[in-house]
Amino acid sequence: MGFSLMRNQKFMPTIKHLLIISIAINAGLLLKLLHHEHEWAGLPGPDTNQKNEVRLVKDVLHKAKPATDQYINLDHGDPTMYEVYWKQMGDKTTLVLSGWQSISYFSDTKNHCWFLEPGFANAVTRLHNLVGNAQTRNYHIVVGTGSTQLFQAALYALSPSNAPEPMSIVSASPFYSSYPLIIDCLKSGLYKWKGDASKFNKDDPYIELVTSPNNPDGSIRQAVVNGSEGILVHDLAYYWPQYTPISFQANHDIMLFTVSKCTGHAGIRIGWALVKDKEVAKKMTKFIEISSIGVSKDSQLRAAKILDVIADTYEHTEKFDKATLFFHYVYNEMAKRWRQLRSAVSKGQTFSLLDFPVEKCNFSGQRFGTQPAFAWLKCEKSIDDCEKFLKKHKILTRSGTHFGSNENYVRISLISHKEEYDEFIRRLSLLSSMNSPHE
Amino acid sequence: MGFSLMRNQKFMPTIKHLLIISIAINAGLLLKLLHHEHEWAGLPGPDTNQKNEVRLVKDVLHKAKPATDQYINLDHGDPTMYEVYWKQMGDKTTLVLSGWQSISYFSDTKNHCWFLEPGFANAVTRLHNLVGNAQTRNYHIVVGTGSTQLFQAALYALSPSNAPEPMSIVSASPFYSSYPLIIDCLKSGLYKWKGDASKFNKDDPYIELVTSPNNPDGSIRQAVVNGSEGILVHDLAYYWPQYTPISFQANHDIMLFTVSKCTGHAGIRIGWALVKDKEVAKKMTKFIEISSIGVSKDSQLRAAKILDVIADTYEHTEKFDKATLFFHYVYNEMAKRWRQLRSAVSKGQTFSLLDFPVEKCNFSGQRFGTQPAFAWLKCEKSIDDCEKFLKKHKILTRSGTHFGSNENYVRISLISHKEEYDEFIRRLSLLSSMNSPHE
Repeated sequence: MGFSLMRNQKFMPTIKHLLIISIAINAGLLLKLLHHEHEWAGLPGPDTNQKNEVRLVKDVLHKAKPATDQYINLDHGDPTMYEVYWKQMGDKTTLVLSGWQSISYFSDTKNHCWFLEPGFANAVTRLHNLVGNAQTRNYHIVVGTGSTQLFQAALYALSPSNAPEPMSIVSASPFYSSYPLIIDCLKSGLYKWKGDASKFNKDDPYIELVTSPNNPDGSIRQAVVNGSEGILVHDLAYYWPQYTPISFQANHDIMLFTVSKCTGHAGIRIGWALVKDKEVAKKMTKFIEISSIGVSKDSQLRAAKILDVIADTYEHTEKFDKATLFFHYVYNEMAKRWRQLRSAVSKGQTFSLLDFPVEKCNFSGQRFGTQPAFAWLKCEKSIDDCEKFLKKHKILTRSGTHFGSNENYVRISLISHKEEYDEFIRRLSLLSSMNSPHE
Repeated sequence: MGFSLMRNQKFMPTIKHLLIISIAINAGLLLKLLHHEHEWAGLPGPDTNQKNEVRLVKDVLHKAKPATDQYINLDHGDPTMYEVYWKQMGDKTTLVLSGWQSISYFSDTKNHCWFLEPGFANAVTRLHNLVGNAQTRNYHIVVGTGSTQLFQAALYALSPSNAPEPMSIVSASPFYSSYPLIIDCLKSGLYKWKGDASKFNKDDPYIELVTSPNNPDGSIRQAVVNGSEGILVHDLAYYWPQYTPISFQANHDIMLFTVSKCTGHAGIRIGWALVKDKEVAKKMTKFIEISSIGVSKDSQLRAAKILDVIADTYEHTEKFDKATLFFHYVYNEMAKRWRQLRSAVSKGQTFSLLDFPVEKCNFSGQRFGTQPAFAWLKCEKSIDDCEKFLKKHKILTRSGTHFGSNENYVRISLISHKEEYDEFIRRLSLLSSMNSPHE
């Protein structure tokens, strides 16, 4: 029918028909693309079944402000603050994983760390070289299921297997609350938690954990024992320019980092160690082989992609908007949150915070004081138990008692969702300006 | 200018213009779509930079047959055999992960196992219900970084923290070679490896590890100690219908499974435990919280997708080709490999293999004998050290001595790349038919 119509009609209607067909094709293609864009942005098209993604999109887009009678949980350092940045970056960090990937246990049989994805190792090296926070030349990279696993790998590698007594592990108070839990979890005969480093007898062999900037209090740290038989492990999870000035390129024997506190991807569970001594790196690898037969490839591939995009925004500035400079963006957010916090605290005499010395950051060129991921808040006046007091006002924090300190202090996460943080600041301002905050 | 042109021209050219514009839009949309399709299939578009994927595609497509003077490594149970199946499935199991996913540590705050992705839990339940190999009703699911981490979590959960002596851990010989290494790695005060279960004094408290089908020898197992103070942990990594008839729905107290040996995705590092007792599940969760602050979300999402596609091929048969039925496909491949192996061994008196009783599989309806992922090969005649003998002929295997057995035996992985396997069979056939295979 179409053919005979063509022959019997004049020229004009045929062009009109072509136009109609062409517009119809336009519409069809647009619909198909829209469907694709939906999938690309993590929103499923009509016939896909990606429930998890839908849930996550909802979480990101519709994070509700907590109601005034709702608890705000700032006990954990859950870095949900970062979601907004990565959402804004759209599909630049989208990763496509095919069904036949991650079959083999092995990532690189030529590397002593045989489960290390070469792309992840490259991305780690590239980012350190960009930021200048740690040396990578002549270091061995070991990847772990978060820096938590690497920390255990380091203890395993550094503790002699045939010593008459377990190796003493110490850290200056206030120390990361998980250290004692992890170390004594299995009642290991290789090592044992011995608490505050400043009270340690320096004649015995020991491993000192130096966390800098420190969790919980943000202080810049160096080893305190300085005994002749000491080995140091540096936890540098927070040594990134959004939290603290990068004043030197760290070159310690063992340095631990984690994606969780660098990019905010805590659910990826990826950390890495930079290790000077090859034999130590090999023993750490052995531990991870025994305890989990390596580390998720999928997570390493995702982490590589994310770290590479961060480096790209700085190295290919012509392609990226200024607002996409990762460390600058997060630095500004942290600065704003610390201004809000200090302003709330200064409203009265109820609370106090530490001050941090101002230093020059070699990465950004700016001068600023550390603006840690956690606040180490002190309750003044008549408040004996700071955690209890805040809990009464529906703010969940972690008591100083968990960090080898006392109950006058609490650790508060500052890297949660904006909506939660704003509500926290509102409540803290009220409490701060109360005249007599009896419990 | 466009406006005055419209007013001064006749109608026809305007329609023509519209047509040209419409066709140009079509071309543009088509190009954009084409680019999308490229990315969707896991192949990078022209301006993306997914080196890892390209590398992996090459690995899969161009796996070279080992040269006759090259070592074949069948020491590890690296399940590379599975790559061909998943490659064949194309983009059905492709997963797209957006940059803002996997930020939070938490997956499901309402679940005692707060790091368990709900989609993964659903997929696990669905697959067990499909296969009928394990009960899931009234069980608690705990996810782990492979079943290796879950096994340690179980030991932690089941060993009393205040006992005067460490809990004894036993398993009938030949047992999985990693058990003693994992258990004694940190010289734990909670538990201790006590070796062969059949030699254990049944009056003391103990945990017996029951692996069925067994690694290394494929035997179907039950507890052997049967003491009054025993606790059982069942490692059911190989209780899937490609390896053994599903003759009953397992309902033990603690059952461990792993994606590695079910779907072949070892590099994902995901395992799960089905646990009857809620308090045990909670303590296992606690161990994983302490030792790695949860489990990779990315890996859980990938595992969920893969398990769901397997279930889809059986539940929506109208949409899938018969060749895509996962367990049927892999069953056939295992059957073929076992035929090749038995044929090679039967060429002479050099080697021998166990026979497995034939049973009915409730899943497939077929009757067959176990066709394990490993061969437990015995060297006969004058060969004292089977591992050494095979190594001389460039076949790397694992000596029986690692499994609590002796050097007459070796464990050989049967789930490597086809090219490797075929070359292994060629070499074994030659050795088998030699008259006097002196070392």
